[in-house]
Amino acid sequence: MILTQINLIFFLCLPIFSIFSASCYHLLDPLTPFELTQVQTLVKNYFSLPPQNVSFHYVGLDEPEKSTVVSWQSSSGNQEILFRRAFVIVRVSSKKTHEIVIDLLKNLVLRDEVYDGYGYPLQNFAEQLAADKLARSYAPFIAAIERRNLKLEEVVCSTFTVGWFGEEKSSRLVKVMCYYMDGTINLYMRPIEGITVTVDLDDMKIVGFRDRVMVPVPKAEGTDYRESVERKSSSDSNVKSMAGEKQVGPGFTLDGYIVRWADWELHVSFDMRAGLIISLASIYDQEKGEYRSVLYRGFVSELFVPYMDLTEEWYYRTFFDAGDYGFGLCAVPLEASRDCPENAMFMDGYITSRDGTPGLMPNVVCVFERYAGDIMWRHTENEIPGQGIREVRPEVSLVVRMVSTVGNYDYIVDWEFKLTGAIKVTVGMTGLLEVRGSIYTHKDQIQEEVYGTILAENTIGTHHDHFLIFNLDVDVDGDANSFIKTTLETARSTGNSSPRRSYWRASSKTAKTEADARIQLGSGATELLVVNPNKKTKVGNFVGYRLIPGAVIGPLLSDDDYAQIRGAFSKYNLWVTPYNKTEKWAAGLYTDQSRGDDDLATWSLRNREIENKDIVLWYTVGFHHAPSQEDFPIMPTLSRSFELRPTNFFERNPVLKAKLSQEIIGPHANLSASFQ
Amino acid sequence: MILTQINLIFFLCLPIFSIFSASCYHLLDPLTPFELTQVQTLVKNYFSLPPQNVSFHYVGLDEPEKSTVVSWQSSSGNQEILFRRAFVIVRVSSKKTHEIVIDLLKNLVLRDEVYDGYGYPLQNFAEQLAADKLARSYAPFIAAIERRNLKLEEVVCSTFTVGWFGEEKSSRLVKVMCYYMDGTINLYMRPIEGITVTVDLDDMKIVGFRDRVMVPVPKAEGTDYRESVERKSSSDSNVKSMAGEKQVGPGFTLDGYIVRWADWELHVSFDMRAGLIISLASIYDQEKGEYRSVLYRGFVSELFVPYMDLTEEWYYRTFFDAGDYGFGLCAVPLEASRDCPENAMFMDGYITSRDGTPGLMPNVVCVFERYAGDIMWRHTENEIPGQGIREVRPEVSLVVRMVSTVGNYDYIVDWEFKLTGAIKVTVGMTGLLEVRGSIYTHKDQIQEEVYGTILAENTIGTHHDHFLIFNLDVDVDGDANSFIKTTLETARSTGNSSPRRSYWRASSKTAKTEADARIQLGSGATELLVVNPNKKTKVGNFVGYRLIPGAVIGPLLSDDDYAQIRGAFSKYNLWVTPYNKTEKWAAGLYTDQSRGDDDLATWSLRNREIENKDIVLWYTVGFHHAPSQEDFPIMPTLSRSFELRPTNFFERNPVLKAKLSQEIIGPHANLSASFQ
Repeated sequence: MILTQINLIFFLCLPIFSIFSASCYHLLDPLTPFELTQVQTLVKNYFSLPPQNVSFHYVGLDEPEKSTVVSWQSSSGNQEILFRRAFVIVRVSSKKTHEIVIDLLKNLVLRDEVYDGYGYPLQNFAEQLAADKLARSYAPFIAAIERRNLKLEEVVCSTFTVGWFGEEKSSRLVKVMCYYMDGTINLYMRPIEGITVTVDLDDMKIVGFRDRVMVPVPKAEGTDYRESVERKSSSDSNVKSMAGEKQVGPGFTLDGYIVRWADWELHVSFDMRAGLIISLASIYDQEKGEYRSVLYRGFVSELFVPYMDLTEEWYYRTFFDAGDYGFGLCAVPLEASRDCPENAMFMDGYITSRDGTPGLMPNVVCVFERYAGDIMWRHTENEIPGQGIREVRPEVSLVVRMVSTVGNYDYIVDWEFKLTGAIKVTVGMTGLLEVRGSIYTHKDQIQEEVYGTILAENTIGTHHDHFLIFNLDVDVDGDANSFIKTTLETARSTGNSSPRRSYWRASSKTAKTEADARIQLGSGATELLVVNPNKKTKVGNFVGYRLIPGAVIGPLLSDDDYAQIRGAFSKYNLWVTPYNKTEKWAAGLYTDQSRGDDDLATWSLRNREIENKDIVLWYTVGFHHAPSQEDFPIMPTLSRSFELRPTNFFERNPVLKAKLSQEIIGPHANLSASFQ
Repeated sequence: MILTQINLIFFLCLPIFSIFSASCYHLLDPLTPFELTQVQTLVKNYFSLPPQNVSFHYVGLDEPEKSTVVSWQSSSGNQEILFRRAFVIVRVSSKKTHEIVIDLLKNLVLRDEVYDGYGYPLQNFAEQLAADKLARSYAPFIAAIERRNLKLEEVVCSTFTVGWFGEEKSSRLVKVMCYYMDGTINLYMRPIEGITVTVDLDDMKIVGFRDRVMVPVPKAEGTDYRESVERKSSSDSNVKSMAGEKQVGPGFTLDGYIVRWADWELHVSFDMRAGLIISLASIYDQEKGEYRSVLYRGFVSELFVPYMDLTEEWYYRTFFDAGDYGFGLCAVPLEASRDCPENAMFMDGYITSRDGTPGLMPNVVCVFERYAGDIMWRHTENEIPGQGIREVRPEVSLVVRMVSTVGNYDYIVDWEFKLTGAIKVTVGMTGLLEVRGSIYTHKDQIQEEVYGTILAENTIGTHHDHFLIFNLDVDVDGDANSFIKTTLETARSTGNSSPRRSYWRASSKTAKTEADARIQLGSGATELLVVNPNKKTKVGNFVGYRLIPGAVIGPLLSDDDYAQIRGAFSKYNLWVTPYNKTEKWAAGLYTDQSRGDDDLATWSLRNREIENKDIVLWYTVGFHHAPSQEDFPIMPTLSRSFELRPTNFFERNPVLKAKLSQEIIGPHANLSASFQ
């Protein structure tokens, strides 16, 4: 959960700025290094305080209204940029959170508002590092480490947000929890249990210390996951694998932040909080001869990760990874042939440090064309005498990927665009579990609730959840859309008209308001459809896109649990709201110690009208994770997906005419697809 | 649903037989062409009837008892084959179904039993062809075609099984339904509605004819899906794609029907009814230095496809694709670079014709190593000062694939074996919808129930379901296994010990009997675990494998509907039974006109004990399909998956030691993985 990305390359912006030529400058492009420096300068001058008294917590693009973007876009993007603003969150020495809007074109601070609600902005790396350092130099902490016969130089600490449990007053606290290396770099498998150091981040002072209990630190042996670590081969059996890939291409183009591939065009951006943002995804309709909008914007709005351990060192672990730590801030550089295939192209991102200095995050997004051996459509026809018909179109898709390593966990987020018009979103989870040190070395010894599975000696893999909520601002062939819930329901055959006794029919209901739309999936058979009620196909169906869930889960915390109050978005698998520029973050803008009073669940209580409006879907991909020994000492990726699939959006199968190039016919030629 | 695979290459067996040398002869290998001919000869001699009076409906391996296979296997397969039997189903002129067991080693008929229960065996191609021909030469049928101003030479017919709707007496009937080409080869998009010809297959006579209603045949325009058909390019926009793949390897070996890849070893077989059969899948445990069993056998046991249209020509369409038509019989040859990647290897299958002559089905299974750009595990570690740690292992897997084209639908079945020990099974559905001709050309005209979606002028895509049930004879580290249902349930925090009010805990219950085990998934959070209760990991967890469902659906037909009585297996997503050699087919051995009296649901009523027994899991992958215009005139693939994932089966992550070969480090080198 804690990040000390000290190996980022900070730099002055000008040399990099040169790559952003006017021609690839888009209204939705993330702030350039030049602009980030401009923000830094303006904010510093505005406050006239010593640099250490102004702490930057977020700098990002303050997006224009959607109507501005759409009209700008429709002029083929050749219009002058007349709107370019930054949104900034800083804390100043008076312990106030300021929300600042900057006009970058006019080079001035447009607005400065002090936020006086509950919750705090996301932590920057510098203050996390400082808190860790403070703890490690604190005499009682050092004594506690000595009492455990541990070497201080092998101790690594992390700052954890503290959650909220009904306290009336709050200050900006974190708990510092520590781990032990001494023979491994897999610190997460070696928690030092029992010691809690509480730090006030604003004052950067220790305000609490507790050494409650001594528990063995799990052993280092077998926890290191590096390839470079020498290991005895446990077998020299014939289990060798050789798989290779060499992909030609790429078949896509990057033009600034615009990606074009096959019939798709989309804008790929990066934000300190959200990470990867997909905007303005539209698909060229071969039959209509025009681009048609699908998704105005899509991004991970929040990640809620509550742990299920009630003990003192664990109960508060109810993290909001995006709001507390920054899903973009925690993004990691990706490497070809490892994180992404050899044929991938990469995009950089920029973040800011505590004092507002921009920093490069190289290769933070990769884009690649995927061929996984799958079939897009096929048919073998043996019915027609004398004709052996076999038509097959292999599946090729475009993947846009980000990986965010929020402390121990690595989240892989893939946006996959298919030739069929479908958008498949996959979340993969890998990295390291958050484990609890324990006295137990065998399951048979355990007679109490340990809140997890014993994974190795002295090591409990704690039960926990992950709820990733996606903000999906669909614009299905325009921005006026309606959400239709279609229930497949059993119907009885009436009269004696048919020997059949039953069938199912599709009963559709257009959601008038937010309350009509939200849904807990699971037991019933329901189809989730977004249509443009103003546009029909030739045979009269509303043009639409369907959201096809994968495995769905709901929350298991009680409604009155503080964590659940704060993560109330997890109550429904899907919410639908009218578009509102300020409603971006499902658990609120300030999640650290939030109280659930300004979040999706609260906004949605207004029960606004959503029929034939510009609507936003909020869909949650969830995991209940009861770890197993295979997750130790590092987890194999666990994935879940959902898909947005065209449904009467096209007049017919849009890839009917997809062709295989002639050159692939030979048995050893490359596969390639071309589209006319 | 109807098959006239007239382009199969029939041949004499001896030239092919030579490839089955003694060294690759396995107890579970499918019958060789030599053996199939041996069966044909023995059965013909046995009945002493003219060849046309003995009709073959199934010939396949009569498997040895599991104990025989396991002990043979444990002797490294070097023992002599002492058990080699064939199971044969024939119909003779007396209209009786005979079940015959042949001892291939002793060259004699061991058993001949007349089956006198309900239902009939799967149709062979010859009788389907004959029934179609009969209908097309029937004077009232010809008159009906003329009345519609259609050309008889453009009419193609198919035989449909008739289902069962409470009739007391039955004979072996099919309904012949016809389609129109005349400008397209996509016959399924041009149904000739209203005419039903009923044929008695045993007498090969027309026993019913009805011309009920005249409905326009949907137009041919835009329905052809062949690449070779000239089309006007609707656009010459820049929507071109280039994706290529070139995979080195393969990294697996085929030794007869045994596939070895990385730590996996499995037997791949082919059966006329089941199609692809995976047997004896076991994984080499690097830490233990031995192969450990996972899956004794897995195959598609049945496909239940009920349509939801109650009209006279449609109500009975409640197909059992495996039992009525043969999932293996309908398998199609696969092609490299199209159905499977360029680096795939292929295996042939054998079927028999009406008179028992063996026929080659070339390339009916493909095996390939997949690299799709995914990540097996990764972590970036930024916590440790001065060390930038990034470890990534790309995901490479082995796929075994079959495609079965049951008339209009193409089912793609993938068994994917992962280095992590997981087995992922994916079902893809593509091909052509079964559509109904209709008077309607626009949705606004429709005021009655049409049981589907209007897809094009005069074309209704009928609502229907697909339930594919897998027979999964798991042997988790041996054959004595137990099934554990673990419910994740909300627990309240007791007392004032924690600021938290709730958490969830895992409550596990071992199923004692079949009734304890079967489950309707959906609303609750349940984990489905198979363990070997006699084996524990070092820290005391039972070794196990978990079944991870994908999206789950249940039936929507009423329990008292005849179709649902026959397809009762769809009632639960998962059933568990004790292993019983005779219980292979979830809807019974004879599904054509079956009455649901000898199927999984019936067997399971005995509520047998399943704890610490050799157990079989039956898991259903289901689809409710409400078609959309994108499915016309050919459907993009729709996929669903489930996974068997090791859960405390290994002491730790089994791919922790997976290495990247040094040669991949260069940016343009191939990716390859090796395991020590």
